[in-house]
Amino acid sequence: MQTGGRTDLAVELKEGLQAGAECQNGMSCREEFHKHKNVHVSTVVISDEEAAKVMGKQIGTYITVEAPGLSGADEKRRRYVAEILAEKLLLLTGKTEGKSILVVGLGNREATPDALGPLTIDGLVVTRHLILELGASFREKYHLTSFFAVAAGVLAQTGMESGEMVKGIVNELKPDLVIAIDALAARSTGRLGTTVQLTDTGIYPGAGIGNNRQALNRATLGVPVIAVGVPTVVDAATIVQERIGQFLKKTGVSEEEWNRFCDETGNGEQKALFVTPKGIDELVHQAGDTIADAINMCFCKELV
Amino acid sequence: MQTGGRTDLAVELKEGLQAGAECQNGMSCREEFHKHKNVHVSTVVISDEEAAKVMGKQIGTYITVEAPGLSGADEKRRRYVAEILAEKLLLLTGKTEGKSILVVGLGNREATPDALGPLTIDGLVVTRHLILELGASFREKYHLTSFFAVAAGVLAQTGMESGEMVKGIVNELKPDLVIAIDALAARSTGRLGTTVQLTDTGIYPGAGIGNNRQALNRATLGVPVIAVGVPTVVDAATIVQERIGQFLKKTGVSEEEWNRFCDETGNGEQKALFVTPKGIDELVHQAGDTIADAINMCFCKELV
Amino acid sequence: MQTGGRTDLAVELKEGLQAGAECQNGMSCREEFHKHKNVHVSTVVISDEEAAKVMGKQIGTYITVEAPGLSGADEKRRRYVAEILAEKLLLLTGKTEGKSILVVGLGNREATPDALGPLTIDGLVVTRHLILELGASFREKYHLTSFFAVAAGVLAQTGMESGEMVKGIVNELKPDLVIAIDALAARSTGRLGTTVQLTDTGIYPGAGIGNNRQALNRATLGVPVIAVGVPTVVDAATIVQERIGQFLKKTGVSEEEWNRFCDETGNGEQKALFVTPKGIDELVHQAGDTIADAINMCFCKELV
Amino acid sequence: MQTGGRTDLAVELKEGLQAGAECQNGMSCREEFHKHKNVHVSTVVISDEEAAKVMGKQIGTYITVEAPGLSGADEKRRRYVAEILAEKLLLLTGKTEGKSILVVGLGNREATPDALGPLTIDGLVVTRHLILELGASFREKYHLTSFFAVAAGVLAQTGMESGEMVKGIVNELKPDLVIAIDALAARSTGRLGTTVQLTDTGIYPGAGIGNNRQALNRATLGVPVIAVGVPTVVDAATIVQERIGQFLKKTGVSEEEWNRFCDETGNGEQKALFVTPKGIDELVHQAGDTIADAINMCFCKELV
Repeated sequence: MQTGGRTDLAVELKEGLQAGAECQNGMSCREEFHKHKNVHVSTVVISDEEAAKVMGKQIGTYITVEAPGLSGADEKRRRYVAEILAEKLLLLTGKTEGKSILVVGLGNREATPDALGPLTIDGLVVTRHLILELGASFREKYHLTSFFAVAAGVLAQTGMESGEMVKGIVNELKPDLVIAIDALAARSTGRLGTTVQLTDTGIYPGAGIGNNRQALNRATLGVPVIAVGVPTVVDAATIVQERIGQFLKKTGVSEEEWNRFCDETGNGEQKALFVTPKGIDELVHQAGDTIADAINMCFCKELV
Repeated sequence: MQTGGRTDLAVELKEGLQAGAECQNGMSCREEFHKHKNVHVSTVVISDEEAAKVMGKQIGTYITVEAPGLSGADEKRRRYVAEILAEKLLLLTGKTEGKSILVVGLGNREATPDALGPLTIDGLVVTRHLILELGASFREKYHLTSFFAVAAGVLAQTGMESGEMVKGIVNELKPDLVIAIDALAARSTGRLGTTVQLTDTGIYPGAGIGNNRQALNRATLGVPVIAVGVPTVVDAATIVQERIGQFLKKTGVSEEEWNRFCDETGNGEQKALFVTPKGIDELVHQAGDTIADAINMCFCKELV
Repeated sequence: MQTGGRTDLAVELKEGLQAGAECQNGMSCREEFHKHKNVHVSTVVISDEEAAKVMGKQIGTYITVEAPGLSGADEKRRRYVAEILAEKLLLLTGKTEGKSILVVGLGNREATPDALGPLTIDGLVVTRHLILELGASFREKYHLTSFFAVAAGVLAQTGMESGEMVKGIVNELKPDLVIAIDALAARSTGRLGTTVQLTDTGIYPGAGIGNNRQALNRATLGVPVIAVGVPTVVDAATIVQERIGQFLKKTGVSEEEWNRFCDETGNGEQKALFVTPKGIDELVHQAGDTIADAINMCFCKELV
Repeated sequence: MQTGGRTDLAVELKEGLQAGAECQNGMSCREEFHKHKNVHVSTVVISDEEAAKVMGKQIGTYITVEAPGLSGADEKRRRYVAEILAEKLLLLTGKTEGKSILVVGLGNREATPDALGPLTIDGLVVTRHLILELGASFREKYHLTSFFAVAAGVLAQTGMESGEMVKGIVNELKPDLVIAIDALAARSTGRLGTTVQLTDTGIYPGAGIGNNRQALNRATLGVPVIAVGVPTVVDAATIVQERIGQFLKKTGVSEEEWNRFCDETGNGEQKALFVTPKGIDELVHQAGDTIADAINMCFCKELV
C-alpha cells in the first residue's frame, strides 16, 4: 500500500493544478462520461519530461475510472464496471492472445485496507499451467493469454522486497508483461473504493527499508509493467488538511499561519496513521472481485 | 467496535475534566505505577448517579491498564502485561473456581481493527466441555473455572444482534458471569494498542440499527457482565479535532469559531471513517493473544 | 461431521436392502431422473415405526439429489443444481414467506472436509436484520422470508455442544424452522461431493462426549429441523470393506472368514481415520456455494 | 504433498527390507533413543548408487525423528521436540552464521493436510530484511543467519510450478541453501503427525502435470536443498493394503491371489483418495509450529 505521498492518483494531481488551468503542455487529457451508468473515465497522457516534472509523475498513460459501486454489494453493477475496466486495461496491454502475463498482487493479506492485491489474485482463473498441459490447440481454441499469478507477500513476513521476488520470477518465467495490483492512498475520502487507476508506468511499493525497496517497472523488470490500483486509505495528515482547509477558507484565517504551524510542529505520529471507511472489509473484497473479473475478461474470456 | 461516541475510555473522560479538578464527588480514583515495567493502572469507581451523569458513564468500576508493548512483538513483555491484566480481571470477577463463565468475542473477524474479540476467542483454552466429560474431580484437581466461549459474529453476516445471540446462550447455559471482549474507540491516537479497559458495567455494541441493538449488561442478560476492551481506532472527526485544538491554542484563534464552523458544516462523511495505525494487523493479533493469555491465567492456570 | 455410523445417507441404506427387494412396507419411494442434465432425485418417505427400525432411520422424508458437478468448477452446472435443490428444499419447508428461519452451519471451519456448514453460512444473504430495520413493506415488496444464520463452531473451540448453542438461540429468537447444514459420511467414495441429502428429521452431530451431545430436531428444539448434508468423507474402515468385498466376491473366499477376522481384531485406529478426495478444499467450497445459492433462492430470491 | 508413491519415508523403506537384514552395503544406519523423553532418531546415510537403487531413494542422509507429541497440544513437549529437530537440522546445514538461507513452504494452505508448508512459514521470524536494514553489526551481535521465506502456492492458484518460482527467487537472491517444508505420505497410519524426516537430498513435489514438475534439489537449484517433512496422509490404497495384509497372514490365503486381483482391477479411484486422522487441523497447525520453532532456534536463536 502506498501511503508515503499525499496521493497516488494522477487525477487528483490534475485537480490540484491552479483552477482554470487547462491540461498542461506535454500532456493530453480526455474525459468520457457514461451518464446513464454514472461512470467517469479520465485519461491523462504525460508525454514529456517537463510535464512529468510539473505533475510529479512518470511519463506514461494514466487512466482513472471513477465508478461508484465498483466495491459495492450490487453484483450487476460490479460486472458492468468490470467490463469497462477490461476495455481500458486492454488499451494499455494491447493484444495479448498467445502472450504470457504475470499478475502480481502486492500488499498484506492480513491488513484489511492493504489486502486488495492478494484478494484480487484469489479471484483469477490462471491459465498458464493449463496451456502447458493441454497444448497450443487448447490455447487457440479459447483464444487464451497464458497468465499466471503470485501474491508477493510483505517484507516482514518474507524477508524479501516484493520487487526482488518478482524480478526473480520474471527472469525465470519470462512473461511478456507484468500487471501489478495494489491498494493506493488518495487525497480525498470520496475516492475510497470508488476509483480505479490504471497506468503503464509501473508501481513503487510503499516506503520501507529505504533504497533496497525496488520499483516494479520496465527499468527494473525488463518488461512493461501495468499498475492497477484502488484507493483504500487516506493519510491521517491529509484528512486533517482537508477539513482545516475548509475552515480556513470559511473564516478567512490565512493559510500561511497553518502552514507555519505544520512546519513547526511536524505531522508527528499522524504519519503512522491511516484513515479508512468503516466497511473497509467488504470494500476491499468487492473491489478485488471486480478487478479479478476484469482481468479474467481480458485474458480468458471464453473460459469463465 | 464502538465508535459512535468520542471515546470509550473512562480514563480519557477523567482527563477531560477541568485541569486541577480532583476526582469528583461520588467517585474514587486510584493510580498505580509499576515504574520499572512502565505499566500504569488507573482505577475509577463511579458510585453515585450524579457522578455517573457528570462523567457520562454507568455506575461501576473502570480499570485502565496503560502498558506500551501489550500489542507489541516482545512476547516476554506481553506475558508480563497479561499477568497484570489477569490480576485486575480477578478483582472484577471475584473468586471464580467452580463457577461458570461465558466469554463473548464481539466484532467482525474480517475487519482488522474490529477483530479483537474473535481473535481473543481463538486464543482461549475453554474448559467447560472437559469438565462435563471428566467430572468434578478433574475440575477440583486443576482448580478450574468452567468457561466457554463464542465469537458472536456481526449483524450483516448473521442477521442477529450480538446481544440477542448472547442472551439466548446465557438463558440456555446459565453462566454465572459474562466477559465480553471488544475493540474500542479512543480519543487519543497514543492509546491505540497500548491500553486495556476493564469494567464491570457491561458493554454497548456500536451503533447499528437503532433500538434493536441491545446492550450486554446485567440488566439485559441477568448476570454480571465484565467488558474488556482495547482501543484500536480513533474517529476521523476526533483526530481532526486533536490537531486543530493544538493549532487554535497556539495561534490564539478562539475555539468558538471552530465549534460554530462544526455546528454549521457537520462532520459529514468523517463519521463513516476511522483512523488506525499502519501496523494494525499485528497490533490486533497480539493484543488478542495478550488478553487470551490473561483470561487463561485466571480460569485454567494449571492447565496451560 | 457425522462419521460415527457407516453411512448417513438413506439412499445407501436402501441400496443395502436385499437385491430385488421392493421399497419396504411403511415406506414410499420415488425416483426422478433429469436425463439430459444427469441429475437423479430419490425421495424416500419412512412412515411407520417398523420401517424406521428396518432402515435404522427416523420416520420422515429423505430426498437425495445425485448431481455430479454440484461441487465442481462449472458455475453454470452448479447454478442448475442449486435450482433443483431449492425446489426440493421448498418441498420440505412448505411456503415460508413471512416466516422466520434460522440456518445453522455445523462443523469445523478449520478442518477442510468438515467445513461445509460454516462455508455455506458465508454465502448466505441473511435478511432478518434488514426486515427489522426496513419494516413489513420491505419484506412484502420482495416476498422475503426472514432468515438469519449462525456457524455453531465446534466443542473444542467453544466448550459448548452445537445443540446447546442452537437451542439457546432458538428459544430467544423463535424461528419457525431451523435448517442445519453439515458434512456427512458416505459408504461409497463415488458419492463424495456429488450427492446432497435433504431430510425433515433433523440432525445428529458426530459422536463426541457421549450423552451430552444433543440432536438438532423437533424434539430438542421445539420447531421442525431440516437437515442438508453433502458427503465429504468415508470412514477408513468402510473403504477397506468396499475393496475387500470385491476381492472376496471375485475369489470366492467366504465373507464369514473376513467378518470373523474383523470381530477378532477390531477396526482399531481406523476409526480415527477418514478418507477424502485429493481436491477436498475446492469440493467443500463449491458445494457450500451451491447450497448457499439454493437457500438464497428459496428465501430471498428477489434480492439476489 | 507427496502422495504419488507408497511412502516418502526412508525409515519405512528400511523396515520393508527383509526381516533380519542388516543395514545394506553402501548404507550406514544409526539409532538413538531418548528413553525418558520417548523420542527415537534414526539416521540413514545412503552412500553409493547401488544402495540408492535398492532403497529407491537418492544418495544422501535421511534423519527420521519419531516423537509422539510433536503435533500435540502439549507445548512443553513440542518445545522439547523442536530442540531435537534444531540439533538434527544443524547436522545437515552445517554452520550457517553469516550465510543466507531461503525457507520454502510447499503445499496448499486451503487443503488442511497439505498446509504444513505454508503454516510453518507463518511461524518463522525472518531476518534477512532486518540484517539489510540494520547492518552487519546487528547480524554479528545476535549471531544471525540471514533467512527469508516464501509459501510457494499451488499450481492451480498460481499457474506456476513451485520449482519454477523457487528457481527464479534463488537465482535472484542467491541464498547459500534452501530448506523446503512439505507434508508427506506415509505407509503406516501410526506415523501421521508423529514423525519428521529431514534429508539433504531435496524434494520432489507431488505428481502434477508430468514433466513440467520440477524437483527442488541441488541439480535444479544450484544450491543444497534440505527437505523437512511430516507425514499427514496415507494413500487410501495403502490403508487397504495394510489391513488386507493382516487378513491374508492370519487366514493363510496366498498373497499372490491378492496381487493378481490388484493387477487385474487396478486401484481405480483410490488413487485420488487419501486418509487422514480426524484431528488433522490441529495436527497440521501444531506440527507447523514445532518445525517453525526448530528453524527459528537454528537461525535466530538470540532474537526469539
